[in-house]
Amino acid sequence: MKLPVSTEWLLHCAASLAQLEAGATASATQLARYFDVPAAYLAKQLQSLVRAGVLTATTGPRGGFRLARDAARITLLDIVEAVDGAAQPYECREIRQQGRGALSPEECRSPCILARKMAEAHDAWRQSLAATTLADIVAAIPASAPARTRARLTGTP
Amino acid sequence: MKLPVSTEWLLHCAASLAQLEAGATASATQLARYFDVPAAYLAKQLQSLVRAGVLTATTGPRGGFRLARDAARITLLDIVEAVDGAAQPYECREIRQQGRGALSPEECRSPCILARKMAEAHDAWRQSLAATTLADIVAAIPASAPARTRARLTGTP
Repeated sequence: MKLPVSTEWLLHCAASLAQLEAGATASATQLARYFDVPAAYLAKQLQSLVRAGVLTATTGPRGGFRLARDAARITLLDIVEAVDGAAQPYECREIRQQGRGALSPEECRSPCILARKMAEAHDAWRQSLAATTLADIVAAIPASAPARTRARLTGTP
Repeated sequence: MKLPVSTEWLLHCAASLAQLEAGATASATQLARYFDVPAAYLAKQLQSLVRAGVLTATTGPRGGFRLARDAARITLLDIVEAVDGAAQPYECREIRQQGRGALSPEECRSPCILARKMAEAHDAWRQSLAATTLADIVAAIPASAPARTRARLTGTP
């Protein structure tokens, strides 16, 4: 059970964009340079955050990415599911209905207790990630960090 | 983020073994027939539960698999981690220490707040699975189910 390596990139990109001044943007090139990750692949991944409504992409000479809404309304779950989708890690193929031990369709009107317990665990994971916003992350870093992030991310070299 | 398809098999195998009389066993062939899954692959997967201390394998003409301890002391987490390992789905490669935005080693003595939050979510998932035992599963199925499971799993055809 693995999340894509790019999950780390996108969480850090979003947390960095949350430190910009209101309305300011950073380009994929700036973000790639800031974290030393491949720019083309990062650009593609950033688009998944745009499609998920987490980031807004603006075009033009000063274009780039910024948060699509207030950092207090973007959770870690929003970002992780934009990268990896929202599918459950556990796949129930209803093996209780096959083989010599097969239960009848009438006995299988409710979901399998094992599938239910696995779904509860996934819900617990989702709730944990949904409980932290990008605003919480920014509040947890040193007060001097945002000014440095802005200078290094979008400042001229 | 996906668990192996065999996770469903092993959860159901363990829940079925939990319904046998004390000391009774079922072979990989019997379990494979009961669920209509590939016997050779299932046998290999059952060994991972033996290695994890969840099942005991006995040899001889009446040999097979049984729970290694009381069903009330085997959790869904024990089974899932025997199948898939206990590694975290989120991988932190410390990108905070690379690129133009690199933090100094002194600033990185504590784990990254994002990695910590991802670890908290994994802990919530683990705690949820650890809260359900095989005894809980058996208690949740109809009272008539264990007798049928025994007959179909280990009875002569």
